[in-house]
Amino acid sequence: MSDEALLDGNPADTHEAIMMATFAALRTHGYPGISIQRIADESDLTKSTFYHHFDGKDDILLSFVEYMRDYFERGYQIESTGDPVGDLEAFVTVSLGEYPAAEGTPDADARLSTYLELRAQAIQNEAFRAEFTELSATLVDNLTEIIETGIEQGVFAVDDPRSTAAYLVATIEGINLQQTTRTDSPRSMLQAQLLTYIDTEVLVDDVSF
Amino acid sequence: MSDEALLDGNPADTHEAIMMATFAALRTHGYPGISIQRIADESDLTKSTFYHHFDGKDDILLSFVEYMRDYFERGYQIESTGDPVGDLEAFVTVSLGEYPAAEGTPDADARLSTYLELRAQAIQNEAFRAEFTELSATLVDNLTEIIETGIEQGVFAVDDPRSTAAYLVATIEGINLQQTTRTDSPRSMLQAQLLTYIDTEVLVDDVSF
Repeated sequence: MSDEALLDGNPADTHEAIMMATFAALRTHGYPGISIQRIADESDLTKSTFYHHFDGKDDILLSFVEYMRDYFERGYQIESTGDPVGDLEAFVTVSLGEYPAAEGTPDADARLSTYLELRAQAIQNEAFRAEFTELSATLVDNLTEIIETGIEQGVFAVDDPRSTAAYLVATIEGINLQQTTRTDSPRSMLQAQLLTYIDTEVLVDDVSF
Repeated sequence: MSDEALLDGNPADTHEAIMMATFAALRTHGYPGISIQRIADESDLTKSTFYHHFDGKDDILLSFVEYMRDYFERGYQIESTGDPVGDLEAFVTVSLGEYPAAEGTPDADARLSTYLELRAQAIQNEAFRAEFTELSATLVDNLTEIIETGIEQGVFAVDDPRSTAAYLVATIEGINLQQTTRTDSPRSMLQAQLLTYIDTEVLVDDVSF
């Protein structure tokens, strides 16, 4: 298995090894080019091991979406520091992929790219759509909690925390989509605009990032 | 050719007929399921006609991306009414797909869905990425012009029209991605948040939509 195959550290079991190989194959061939053979080529496992664990390619890919959902849900679950301003900043930084990757793991852009490629498949794939609906709800829940804490502490002024959280999540995904589908790397410029929005619409006057 | 094949009205020539068939095949099978046979099945043309016009599937799909780019560039080129507030509102409405489709054409959601599915392929496909980078630049240009007119007329207050335009385009794509990849139709809620942002960050105090 190549280093690029690792989503995060060493696989705990065969299921996770298959998930990491699927990630590597998606990075190499893209979603339309995926086959069981190509996933197997990214691992030390035989094709028959794959068929022992899964019904076929579609089954592996849905499992991978579930695996990614779990991975992102854990990653975006910002551990509260008791400081909602810092927590909100951490949420934005993590969700825009602006943080260093641990050694031996793929960079944040690789994860975001594969996530967005699969997310767009949800347009046609109902099972994927159900997973991503749940993922979005979890991210919005996490961010709503941060915003509500900020309101309680008097550092945020927001009328409708849940809608504001949903809007921030949508904007962040829009920025990530622009970043990964354009050649001119617009992320830092768009991120600066997002921080201005948060400064004006979320933080109270005497608080800033 | 089924009614769904039509991207807009009747095809002007064989090239456009192939583009419409490609759109219909993308709607039916999704990007990973596309083949020349399936595109041909959506048209009255033979497979050999396709090979006469194109080198193969990848060539057809790149042509379709160029066709879509042209279609969106024309569609989002808001004809200035001399009223930048109305023009900005029209830009938002059109780009969120919130307008009635002409009779016999697919609805705006079908076009947006296929657009986003292809846009996500740009993550892996460099030729697509070049096209979508140009499309984004054109949309940002159009919107920048509207914002600059609004500043001149004293109805908008914006420090950096181009960055604001780029941020609005990213946010709108994020809303469209959420709408097309979730089961809970979040568009109107997110659109309301976007209008609040525009009201506070773009329009001067005594102007509103």
